[in-house]
Amino acid sequence: MVNYPNGLKKTWIASQSPTTFADRGMNLEKDINTTNTYYLSMDRAVIHKKPTPVQIVKVDYPKRSAAKITEAYFKIPSTTDYNGIYRGKYLDFEAKECQSKTAFSLSYIHPHQLTHLEACMRHGGICFLIFRLSHYNTDYLVDAKLLIDYVKQLKRKSIPYSWIRENGHIIPRYYGRPIHYLEIVDKLYFKDEEDMHESKQEEKKDQQ
Amino acid sequence: MVNYPNGLKKTWIASQSPTTFADRGMNLEKDINTTNTYYLSMDRAVIHKKPTPVQIVKVDYPKRSAAKITEAYFKIPSTTDYNGIYRGKYLDFEAKECQSKTAFSLSYIHPHQLTHLEACMRHGGICFLIFRLSHYNTDYLVDAKLLIDYVKQLKRKSIPYSWIRENGHIIPRYYGRPIHYLEIVDKLYFKDEEDMHESKQEEKKDQQ
Repeated sequence: MVNYPNGLKKTWIASQSPTTFADRGMNLEKDINTTNTYYLSMDRAVIHKKPTPVQIVKVDYPKRSAAKITEAYFKIPSTTDYNGIYRGKYLDFEAKECQSKTAFSLSYIHPHQLTHLEACMRHGGICFLIFRLSHYNTDYLVDAKLLIDYVKQLKRKSIPYSWIRENGHIIPRYYGRPIHYLEIVDKLYFKDEEDMHESKQEEKKDQQ
Repeated sequence: MVNYPNGLKKTWIASQSPTTFADRGMNLEKDINTTNTYYLSMDRAVIHKKPTPVQIVKVDYPKRSAAKITEAYFKIPSTTDYNGIYRGKYLDFEAKECQSKTAFSLSYIHPHQLTHLEACMRHGGICFLIFRLSHYNTDYLVDAKLLIDYVKQLKRKSIPYSWIRENGHIIPRYYGRPIHYLEIVDKLYFKDEEDMHESKQEEKKDQQ
């Protein structure tokens, strides 16, 4: 384990917090960020993680050094964590790391986030969710409409992994792109497009 | 002046900080947020402000109350403040409140942000900047390409207002939409589209 420069352990949030899930999914977040940086460097897509929403209450301004926030609180996000542009389309998704062995608890998704995804879809965006089933070391991309329709008729408060396996698409891992979700996005959302030529050229570029 | 519930003055950031501009443009931000909420409620567009990027260093977890961030710092944003989807298109912009009487200093825009806007444009996004000339009580929308091309050949470190007036478009203000920038977006970026009918219907809906 690598310590922070200030000597804090990487796990300090998770170990002290029974109720916060700020540190859950940090590995997934890291992998998505790495992949997004790759996409950006190849000029394939512009997709960023939004900053964690924080309510700032108190700020100190010490002389000759940076402003220091001394009191702030986590806010409930009203949108998803990731959005951007790919092949001319607006793209929006949420990513969740699932620690359970059997099902994903819906308590980890805020209702606002599903409402947000629905709104983005109505306006023509490409919307999906990424689930990392940590115990099985597999990442799935699930179309947002499919998931929302399923959740609406769901009686229990969790999504069984069997449903994710049936309806999701396994996201491939490559060197430099630990979670290459755009490969699935191409297959799912651009299959009808005529610009297959362009796509193939991009894939070639990627493989270099 | 209205105080915060904790008794702090609204101006506490600006008055204590010679180097931070976190509080500058708060009125503009408020107006854009109000307008975006209106767009969302009318299902006209899904556009949100990204949270302020903050580097969280220390978090306390008091028993039976919310996690409290006790040490954090402002980070330099790598993207713009606003993005979303409108009429099927990815939309991305930065907004700046200008206090000077004659020119906008480029020191208030991070080079990353212009690079980000350029990347979004390459991928087919609608990109622009909003300038509020506070002293003249007027808001302008300036196309990002126009601005970036201008900045690249600029020798000084500021944009004279005369340039903004010549190349920008005055953004109208309406009740409930204090900065109705989508009206300009329609004129600038959708003029060639054939779905004028749809647009007119939307405007009618807006005026109701």
